[in-house]
Amino acid sequence: MAKYALGVDYGTNSVRALIVDVSNGDEIGTAVWNYETGNHGVHEDDRDVHLARQNPADYQKGFFEAVKGAVADAQNMAGFETAQIIGIGVDTTGSTPIPVDKDGVALALKPEFKGNLHAMAWLWKDHTGYAEAAEITEKAKSFPYLKKCGGTYSSEWFWSKILRCKRVAPEVFQAAHSWVEMQDYIPGWLVGKSTPSEIPRGICAAGHKAMFHTEWGGLPSKEFLTLLDPDLAELRDRLYNSTMTAEQIAGQLLPDIADRTGLPAGIPVSVGAFDAHLGAVGSGIREGTLVKIMGTSTCDIMIGGADTPDIPGVCGIVPGSVVPGFMGIEAGQSAVGDLFNWCVDKLGSGSHESLSEEALQLKPGESGLLALDWNNGNRTILVDPQLTGLIVGQTLHTSAGEIYRTLIEATAFGSRKIIERIEEFGVPVREVVVCGGIGEKSPLAMQIYSDVFGRPIKISRSAQTCALGSAVAASVAAGAHQTVLEAADAMTGYKDLSYTPNPDAVRVYNRLYDLYSALHDSFGIAGTTNDLSQVMKALLEIRREVVA
Amino acid sequence: MAKYALGVDYGTNSVRALIVDVSNGDEIGTAVWNYETGNHGVHEDDRDVHLARQNPADYQKGFFEAVKGAVADAQNMAGFETAQIIGIGVDTTGSTPIPVDKDGVALALKPEFKGNLHAMAWLWKDHTGYAEAAEITEKAKSFPYLKKCGGTYSSEWFWSKILRCKRVAPEVFQAAHSWVEMQDYIPGWLVGKSTPSEIPRGICAAGHKAMFHTEWGGLPSKEFLTLLDPDLAELRDRLYNSTMTAEQIAGQLLPDIADRTGLPAGIPVSVGAFDAHLGAVGSGIREGTLVKIMGTSTCDIMIGGADTPDIPGVCGIVPGSVVPGFMGIEAGQSAVGDLFNWCVDKLGSGSHESLSEEALQLKPGESGLLALDWNNGNRTILVDPQLTGLIVGQTLHTSAGEIYRTLIEATAFGSRKIIERIEEFGVPVREVVVCGGIGEKSPLAMQIYSDVFGRPIKISRSAQTCALGSAVAASVAAGAHQTVLEAADAMTGYKDLSYTPNPDAVRVYNRLYDLYSALHDSFGIAGTTNDLSQVMKALLEIRREVVA
Repeated sequence: MAKYALGVDYGTNSVRALIVDVSNGDEIGTAVWNYETGNHGVHEDDRDVHLARQNPADYQKGFFEAVKGAVADAQNMAGFETAQIIGIGVDTTGSTPIPVDKDGVALALKPEFKGNLHAMAWLWKDHTGYAEAAEITEKAKSFPYLKKCGGTYSSEWFWSKILRCKRVAPEVFQAAHSWVEMQDYIPGWLVGKSTPSEIPRGICAAGHKAMFHTEWGGLPSKEFLTLLDPDLAELRDRLYNSTMTAEQIAGQLLPDIADRTGLPAGIPVSVGAFDAHLGAVGSGIREGTLVKIMGTSTCDIMIGGADTPDIPGVCGIVPGSVVPGFMGIEAGQSAVGDLFNWCVDKLGSGSHESLSEEALQLKPGESGLLALDWNNGNRTILVDPQLTGLIVGQTLHTSAGEIYRTLIEATAFGSRKIIERIEEFGVPVREVVVCGGIGEKSPLAMQIYSDVFGRPIKISRSAQTCALGSAVAASVAAGAHQTVLEAADAMTGYKDLSYTPNPDAVRVYNRLYDLYSALHDSFGIAGTTNDLSQVMKALLEIRREVVA
Repeated sequence: MAKYALGVDYGTNSVRALIVDVSNGDEIGTAVWNYETGNHGVHEDDRDVHLARQNPADYQKGFFEAVKGAVADAQNMAGFETAQIIGIGVDTTGSTPIPVDKDGVALALKPEFKGNLHAMAWLWKDHTGYAEAAEITEKAKSFPYLKKCGGTYSSEWFWSKILRCKRVAPEVFQAAHSWVEMQDYIPGWLVGKSTPSEIPRGICAAGHKAMFHTEWGGLPSKEFLTLLDPDLAELRDRLYNSTMTAEQIAGQLLPDIADRTGLPAGIPVSVGAFDAHLGAVGSGIREGTLVKIMGTSTCDIMIGGADTPDIPGVCGIVPGSVVPGFMGIEAGQSAVGDLFNWCVDKLGSGSHESLSEEALQLKPGESGLLALDWNNGNRTILVDPQLTGLIVGQTLHTSAGEIYRTLIEATAFGSRKIIERIEEFGVPVREVVVCGGIGEKSPLAMQIYSDVFGRPIKISRSAQTCALGSAVAASVAAGAHQTVLEAADAMTGYKDLSYTPNPDAVRVYNRLYDLYSALHDSFGIAGTTNDLSQVMKALLEIRREVVA
């Protein structure tokens, strides 16, 4: 009889549940539930564009609704019974820390904090702590803590948010016995280990966002935290000293939650992790494969051997954060789909369809344009939010479709910079696997990426790789597979469609990439003094050659 | 009894006639006739985007139709009689050379060349001779000929076109006894001095486009022309050795042309000149005043003392080309209105009205953007058609209206570069007068220009300054005034509306101009090695300060 794992994926606007056959990855039931509070699940503040919070009540209701929906969907298949579900895995956005009381109850769920934005979950894209992030980066300079995360601490991360909370909402900070990442909060709640001392903490959030590393004894020292705020040093004692990997068992599903969803009580729930990391697992990550989770922004995930060195400018190198026994490597670009959306929504130049159609008619180099993909700053490898976009090469004939294509190319060049940086430090990138909507919806972008990378590109078979990755982790926790790689091998795959580089396009893009690199370094790296006077002429020359 | 002068202005798509009171500049009759052949008067070739020709038949019919229309219009005024018209002045586009036979008949009007594009007038914006222009620039390096025109010969100019004709249409070249600029062709035809040896040649085209200067004995030497093609040296004998200024008398109106238009026969016709130069006269040019003729592109005209030195990168410094007794200085930008049109037509981002409305809401520096205005190359001061556009500073919030404003600012910065170059060589620019549609239609652009220049801007009173300038020249030729400056003083003026710089805006724009200069030099001047890594941050910082 078939066995199934349940993956639950918490996104920015909704939660998805997916029931997967652990033997072959068949997806037999799925459902999505949109958060019902805030603006599509995000609580905002008109006075501060940086603020983005979530209501933990949405997380709990979302679990029940999405899981019940997925179960009902699976029951359309003859012979399926919920008893065949053997485990649950969870992935979430992050860093999304939640202040909780000593019983592990989210402050936002308590009457006295009802409606208080600071008592809610601080969503990954909340940037209110940008000054605190800069302060952490500055004060960490004489400590080793940033060397695993590219040298710069982000306003999106754990400590920036908590320090910010202390400063703007001390009453919330004081009431918070501890802070729990959303990736840990959900599994803890499902298995009844909610108090801060017993919640199983996943290495993914800890290592990538909270500067946790065994090399320096876990979280940053009290000495360092005191430099930020003595209360943070006090808080350290109420956080955690150890972490687990995502295929480990967090605990057993509580009977009352099982009752409300139709799931079997007592089945194992695996430790939580971030969506991108389990998305990489659901895309079939292995050594030598770069998985790109492409959406409004893009996460690049790889796994490297235990000897993988620190890589400057890369967001995080954390042992076991993706697959146990390997170093998890996370990089990314701050705007990818958002950059294409900008062309449509803000420039008003047409629809994605019309612009793609026009862009498809163009040969590489034909537009005569070149762009930097920094409209939302640069996350990797420059790690600088204070960078912006640039387009060069416009004539009076330059069309919106040409600009659209150029922006796609710019994100491909930015991605190639990441690939080259990772390879430079000894981790070879042999193939690229793309998951997320752009991989399925834009053959234009995928062919450009393949040509710019000079590498084949495969598309993840599943359209919901994050939930699938959670199911993979759950299948190991439930004993259906011995290891994550073995489970991923059985449960994941690629679409038949793949993209291979066109040698002529590769040659043109190599020339454009050299020009991109000149602009990248000139505008992004202090002290660079390239002679850029031939850039425009080189673009015109490439265009002439390509058109001829 | 009032006396009137007739100004006839030949543009790219139409011809305009204007009847003006010589005592006060009152415009009592006007009419426009659109050329009836080609694409809005321009004969094109689908296989070559650089080609742009005109049919001289349109010029002749255009004279009759526009003048008859203007006369009919004037006759709406009680008491007007055509006998009150005392002289005719003519301005045209240029350099627009026309191949003619030994009788001065345009080859295009002869049956054997009917429909032959190479036998037509080679319109100013014909760029088919770009390779020939580069060859002329190269071979002129050991001669003095380019020092009056910025050091680079243009594909838009006289010799590039004739040399090109020799190469692509030798049969036309051989049939051409001579070549006549359109500015000289029309007056010669009106007064019956059509043979190449008798046509009065104006200094404007000769000095600015044909490298004519008394310093080296008129046109370039046979020695130099032989380097290009021995046949050009032969042609030199069939061109001209002397020139006249625009207020001089070319001759008397032929009776049959007078009959067909109702004009008095025998009235003086003044020597022709280019539209921009007589437009400057019609805008009230004087020492210290820069006149900007703003349209799709922009011409900047000044007059300087006789000791005005050569100014590197400025299109032309020609004695008497604007006002006799002064050096005529011509500079310009290749795309101004065309750049704003590009935003509307090619990016499809909205109408001029909607984008202007959005741009008007913005403070200087608020967009966080900066652009180079080189979408059609740089005419002054870099003199490089192989330059293209650049925009930097985009975020995901950047709107089309912000880009529109930034492009206006970019043209203002480009214009300031020209002003500073001219001042650097000892010609002070105390005020700026704008004529052309943008000056009347865009208060947004005019205020930005005033703020970027830190100088007041006046708007020319007449909406048809080129035709008015021709009438000014005619009024001197007819003896109504002693000098061009005296005539212009009587006949031209400014609108009541003017623009003065806002000190706060000036401060912000001075900072942005420094950044513009860094980009200008980095992308435009070989060997420049500026550190540009702080440009994006500086733009963000200016935005933060302005918004705060």
